[in-house]
Amino acid sequence: MPPTTAVSASSSFTLFRVPSSWSTKLKPTTTYIQIPNRFFPKHPTFKMTTTTIRAAVSIEKETPETERPPTFLRESDDKESSSSSASSVRARFEKMIRDAQDSVCQAIEKTDGGGKFKEDVWSRPGGGGGISRVLQDGAIWEKAGVNVSVVYGVMPPEAYRAAKAAASDEKPGPIPFFAAGISSVLHPKNPFAPTLHFNYRYFETDAPKDTPGAPRQWWFGGGTDLTPAYIFEEDVKHFHSTQKSACDKFDPTFYPRFKKWCDDYFYIKHRGERRGLGGLFFDDLNDYDQEMLLSFATECANSVIPAYIPIIEKRKDTPFTDQHKAWQQLRRGRYVEFNLVYDRGTTFGLKTGGRIESILVSLPLTARWEYDHNPKEGSEEWKLLDACINPKEWI
Amino acid sequence: MPPTTAVSASSSFTLFRVPSSWSTKLKPTTTYIQIPNRFFPKHPTFKMTTTTIRAAVSIEKETPETERPPTFLRESDDKESSSSSASSVRARFEKMIRDAQDSVCQAIEKTDGGGKFKEDVWSRPGGGGGISRVLQDGAIWEKAGVNVSVVYGVMPPEAYRAAKAAASDEKPGPIPFFAAGISSVLHPKNPFAPTLHFNYRYFETDAPKDTPGAPRQWWFGGGTDLTPAYIFEEDVKHFHSTQKSACDKFDPTFYPRFKKWCDDYFYIKHRGERRGLGGLFFDDLNDYDQEMLLSFATECANSVIPAYIPIIEKRKDTPFTDQHKAWQQLRRGRYVEFNLVYDRGTTFGLKTGGRIESILVSLPLTARWEYDHNPKEGSEEWKLLDACINPKEWI
Repeated sequence: MPPTTAVSASSSFTLFRVPSSWSTKLKPTTTYIQIPNRFFPKHPTFKMTTTTIRAAVSIEKETPETERPPTFLRESDDKESSSSSASSVRARFEKMIRDAQDSVCQAIEKTDGGGKFKEDVWSRPGGGGGISRVLQDGAIWEKAGVNVSVVYGVMPPEAYRAAKAAASDEKPGPIPFFAAGISSVLHPKNPFAPTLHFNYRYFETDAPKDTPGAPRQWWFGGGTDLTPAYIFEEDVKHFHSTQKSACDKFDPTFYPRFKKWCDDYFYIKHRGERRGLGGLFFDDLNDYDQEMLLSFATECANSVIPAYIPIIEKRKDTPFTDQHKAWQQLRRGRYVEFNLVYDRGTTFGLKTGGRIESILVSLPLTARWEYDHNPKEGSEEWKLLDACINPKEWI
Repeated sequence: MPPTTAVSASSSFTLFRVPSSWSTKLKPTTTYIQIPNRFFPKHPTFKMTTTTIRAAVSIEKETPETERPPTFLRESDDKESSSSSASSVRARFEKMIRDAQDSVCQAIEKTDGGGKFKEDVWSRPGGGGGISRVLQDGAIWEKAGVNVSVVYGVMPPEAYRAAKAAASDEKPGPIPFFAAGISSVLHPKNPFAPTLHFNYRYFETDAPKDTPGAPRQWWFGGGTDLTPAYIFEEDVKHFHSTQKSACDKFDPTFYPRFKKWCDDYFYIKHRGERRGLGGLFFDDLNDYDQEMLLSFATECANSVIPAYIPIIEKRKDTPFTDQHKAWQQLRRGRYVEFNLVYDRGTTFGLKTGGRIESILVSLPLTARWEYDHNPKEGSEEWKLLDACINPKEWI
């Protein structure tokens, strides 16, 4: 079954930021995207009159492919990159996420020893496409999804008028945009083996043709976070240390900043608790050198396997009781609550008519809700809940 | 554990209508309520300038009670009712929903033969309160919740200015409101025994003190709907016939109208399917005689047991396989999707900081999500899915 819109398929989780107040204005036949203010602050043509720009984006219908193409980039992007000394950021980001998809899927299959990923590939006539891979009912993982996608879209003139000074009658041309991302959720069976989520994405506009000198705009977003049902302090320390090491190669402020951002983002407001024990999260990142941020995203994606697989190897065969399993299932219920109620990419994808199977591959195979379940103070379950309510510094 | 706000506890599901576009404007410390336009159309003071009125409503914190009080009404309401020839609609509606809670809980316990309801009672110093009852892990039902509540609130002057002509500087006084409702979700264990949801509610404003002659406004809302994992045509026919009989006692247009309204309301837009096989749903109903609608709501509530229990008696012990159970669990996943993503009462309750355990008692004990699950055409699972995609006339 082919995906119906690439934005949703690509953004299985959080490719684009969309405020929930849009929901009543969204139509299922149109894909919408929000452009952060800071895309247009420095060019006089783009004086903001509102705090957000709301842009309707047209994206073609995709078609299923039987083979993975070497690239989902348009030919013009390929040419552009060959004319410069280094390949374009677009091309290198696509290569990075496809390499990351391959290496993560290989590591998962090798560790699992039983399950195999099922693959769906699609593309669009005008460029862009994606690869969804899902492993279900493996020996270790009950559900593991790793998706990449590349999206080309065009913002119509209406979006530009919102971005210009109210007095101006000048009608600018459309600004094409490019977006690419990898997103993944890995749910193991054993209640002592944690769930992992990661997502890295890159967004870029073309330089507008009718406003010479207006810059090409871009940003990076992403993160990796750990969701165990039980705390093994050495595991959480190992996970956070690996994230911190990736950050520290680039900027000593990254880890504390993105660790806090992660604790803030994965907050289940109606529960007053996070869905898990955090990690890294960042969005709209463009106030650093672009090459540095590309390297940083690459480093983060490459840290997924060393951060996660050793924990799985250690916990995958831990004996457990029905009570341990029930608690894992209750925490999976919280995962469902976060993803369906708060996650920007998921709620956006659902409302814009995306490919549901790709969007909801993030949900666990099974989940549980008990009325008024309160772990006994001091129990292992209570310790996990306490750490979700009061985020800790693990390293 | 006492509930934190009565609106949410009362409206476990759909006590109040709140458009999703509000979500960014809602604060957890305030309870919001939407007043349909038609509350104020006939009095010159209330000329609408917008299509909706947004009103912030203050509600006191509740306190747990050890015993059920004879009534949650304020004393002034009691006096008012004793001075009229018949009891007030408020008083009779409260009595109706409390009687319905008792009789439904008794019928469930009797049929279950094992589980018992756990009760939480609370009240507010200024009037209002509620009773939550939950049966978990019974012999037949894995989770059954039946909640009633009574809410007194006051809309502040800001709400009135929105309801008046824009030019008017006159500052009206606050309009107190009253709301009461019963809501219930019953999830059985056996995959051939269907889930039932019902909810009946009544809303009323006081007559405004500073605008003599302005009328007291009121409406009724509610419905009963059936969610099986497998279709037994005789069961669905029995259920819908019972609903139709209740409707036909009052108006021959009610059943077709509220049956369609139900199919439209319980629509999981991102799936293109309903969560179940429907029943009745109505909201904002005030364009009929008030006494007639009170009798109608009573008749509907009284129809819950005869519509549902005979089906359970027939299916509760049907032998089933793991495959049958897995399909029921997938359908429970759809139930979770509807309630967390679309149900007005649930999404409203979550965003306004309501009592989570009361709001989410509607979720099943367990649920399941498989990647790209497509029942084989012609199978029993496919037939259910088909009926959820293409609503049928059952009688």
